[in-house]
Amino acid sequence: MLTEMLTNVRAHNPLVHNITNYVTVNDCANIVLASGGSPIMADGIDEVEEITTICASLNINIGTLNDATREAMVRAGKQANKVNHPVVLDPVGVGASTLRNETIVQLLKEVQFSVIRGNISEIKFIADLLGLDVNTASQSRGVDASDEDKVTKDNLNEAAAFAKAMARATGSVIAMTGAIDVVADTEKAYCIFNGHAEMSTITGSGCQLSALLGSYLGANPTTPLDAAAAAVIVMGVCGEIGHERMTDVDGNSSYRNYIIDAVQRLTSQQLENKARYEVR
Amino acid sequence: MLTEMLTNVRAHNPLVHNITNYVTVNDCANIVLASGGSPIMADGIDEVEEITTICASLNINIGTLNDATREAMVRAGKQANKVNHPVVLDPVGVGASTLRNETIVQLLKEVQFSVIRGNISEIKFIADLLGLDVNTASQSRGVDASDEDKVTKDNLNEAAAFAKAMARATGSVIAMTGAIDVVADTEKAYCIFNGHAEMSTITGSGCQLSALLGSYLGANPTTPLDAAAAAVIVMGVCGEIGHERMTDVDGNSSYRNYIIDAVQRLTSQQLENKARYEVR
Amino acid sequence: MLTEMLTNVRAHNPLVHNITNYVTVNDCANIVLASGGSPIMADGIDEVEEITTICASLNINIGTLNDATREAMVRAGKQANKVNHPVVLDPVGVGASTLRNETIVQLLKEVQFSVIRGNISEIKFIADLLGLDVNTASQSRGVDASDEDKVTKDNLNEAAAFAKAMARATGSVIAMTGAIDVVADTEKAYCIFNGHAEMSTITGSGCQLSALLGSYLGANPTTPLDAAAAAVIVMGVCGEIGHERMTDVDGNSSYRNYIIDAVQRLTSQQLENKARYEVR
Repeated sequence: MLTEMLTNVRAHNPLVHNITNYVTVNDCANIVLASGGSPIMADGIDEVEEITTICASLNINIGTLNDATREAMVRAGKQANKVNHPVVLDPVGVGASTLRNETIVQLLKEVQFSVIRGNISEIKFIADLLGLDVNTASQSRGVDASDEDKVTKDNLNEAAAFAKAMARATGSVIAMTGAIDVVADTEKAYCIFNGHAEMSTITGSGCQLSALLGSYLGANPTTPLDAAAAAVIVMGVCGEIGHERMTDVDGNSSYRNYIIDAVQRLTSQQLENKARYEVR
Repeated sequence: MLTEMLTNVRAHNPLVHNITNYVTVNDCANIVLASGGSPIMADGIDEVEEITTICASLNINIGTLNDATREAMVRAGKQANKVNHPVVLDPVGVGASTLRNETIVQLLKEVQFSVIRGNISEIKFIADLLGLDVNTASQSRGVDASDEDKVTKDNLNEAAAFAKAMARATGSVIAMTGAIDVVADTEKAYCIFNGHAEMSTITGSGCQLSALLGSYLGANPTTPLDAAAAAVIVMGVCGEIGHERMTDVDGNSSYRNYIIDAVQRLTSQQLENKARYEVR
Repeated sequence: MLTEMLTNVRAHNPLVHNITNYVTVNDCANIVLASGGSPIMADGIDEVEEITTICASLNINIGTLNDATREAMVRAGKQANKVNHPVVLDPVGVGASTLRNETIVQLLKEVQFSVIRGNISEIKFIADLLGLDVNTASQSRGVDASDEDKVTKDNLNEAAAFAKAMARATGSVIAMTGAIDVVADTEKAYCIFNGHAEMSTITGSGCQLSALLGSYLGANPTTPLDAAAAAVIVMGVCGEIGHERMTDVDGNSSYRNYIIDAVQRLTSQQLENKARYEVR
């Protein structure tokens, strides 16, 4: 599965349309290129529909939101649905403001997403917004997950069940990332143990993963669950490979470079050997 | 003092709200993370008041200004004052346009800042805008300080007196950075000799420092002078540590990474040993 | 020629006004600094005319366009013409949307550019927009050049003739970059063989070159063809020097740093020794 997903990205060189925040946009573009895709960043209201039409997939990230980009997201998302392109949603910081909450409610209503990727607190907050009874009272802490929400080996079954319930409620693959990642559709959950704790000290490691999902979905549009799981595993494996390069003077800024470098250099053999996941 | 300030940042992990320019925003986010804080970048008019309320401090930087971000800055600043959060102002390029000058005048009128950080030319220009008689006719040269304004050992007493006068006029700690940094409240001026000349060849080393001030003020809100001096010293010390890594093929792009890396790796022992400052 | 252009940039430290996209803006600022210039990024409608007036040159890049930045580009461009500053145009992704096409038509009508820099597909698309009969039917593929457009040793004479024709049609130096770069005015075409194929895996290597053109034009305003050719050669040579540093774990993110580093470290001797070009 993994080799097939990876090979398809490199063979098809998908164009990935990103409407994303201005904080991590450069890293998002570089990780798409590193993966074998081609990024286009465009959020002008008057052009997003045309841009998304010529692309293979769309990645919507609400990290730095305003009225103009919100409208651009809705327009692009609807058009991507119309031309049957996969669409990724990254609900950065949902719960931190009314604007973010209302935008997510609107997007979920007007756009059908292939994948929703967020940390556990963000996914739980969406459950609340949708009025789902999933016993998930969650407290947003800005753009990071709350400690009390963390997925561990002890609560992994509950987390997998929650992700599947969210997949049923949204019609999307749910990619709930953290120390353990859970990627699920309604029937099947990949529980992924790759990655390194220090990835959370890099700004936008989650945004980068969402952009990478754009590459993997764009090149593997008919198998969204496998494509999403593969992208999450690639990010985790590259987080590990990048961390192996760290010297005792390296910190988060160099680590960011090393991870993106690793995405470009990744071989299918490395990926298969280092992948650690189980299906529940 | 330094160890205490550093330790508080890492212990309290302050959320820092940044309304900053899109040029250096990624480095600002990474340096906040490196310091032990958590950054949130948000400039949507409809959400900045909510965002700043859940944070520990606010950093306002006018590097790339427009009418929408100007309004967001005013709203966020007033709200931060209301909930008693420290607010940092970075008046990037004040003097270079009417828009920047008018925005600074408005911000200084409507928001009480804990710290104003700029190069000497920017601080002098603010003195002019405020109509202060401090013998400071200054010429803006874009976003850089003029050569004729530079603080040296010879004019350090005058610079310290000027910074104290500006602190009295604004009610803010003044962090006037350059080859020698002066950080002053009305009574006391830290004169700081750390740093490296090549830091000025990195875009946004000043913006990064302002974001770092957000971390230090957020975690040490009751001691703004010490917090600000500590942040300035941390930046200078890390500029030195980062420079020690430079090989003869490294330039400003790698140097940027090395400084942020050093902020993450910094020990209190390194900080205390390398700090070079005096109080006037 | 090359040494003279390089030396002038470092001696004159030109201020370069950039109205550019938020994807690659940080790298653009750092490469201007690395070259010996000083960048100012400003796109507020109310300040661009003042900002461009205090600068030495203007670089307009339509990578992430909206109605506000479009208006800022037109205003800044006209003002730069009025005060006789060189203006660079980077028509990123022209052909990918009506907004981009209309903006380029408007800009070419209202602003006289010193240099237009794009990949071959972008330059051909502009020929189409201008109604030029240059046998150039081209298909935009997002922000990248189409394979069928590529300049090779076999079609280099045609490419040089096309660039000269475009220079006649626009009154601008044409910098058409790719595996082989062609930089031409109406009479003379530099065909440049420097660079490395992997540069295309870095986001914004073209944007960075356009910012570098801002430095070289700003410091060498009376010799736009030589200034533009020198900037293109510097970028290519630094792409080679940067690539020599690559280890087998380095990828596009580190490569980006190495190229900018090389621009800062470049000696005139390196530049003269490594430059590979011919005039047609």
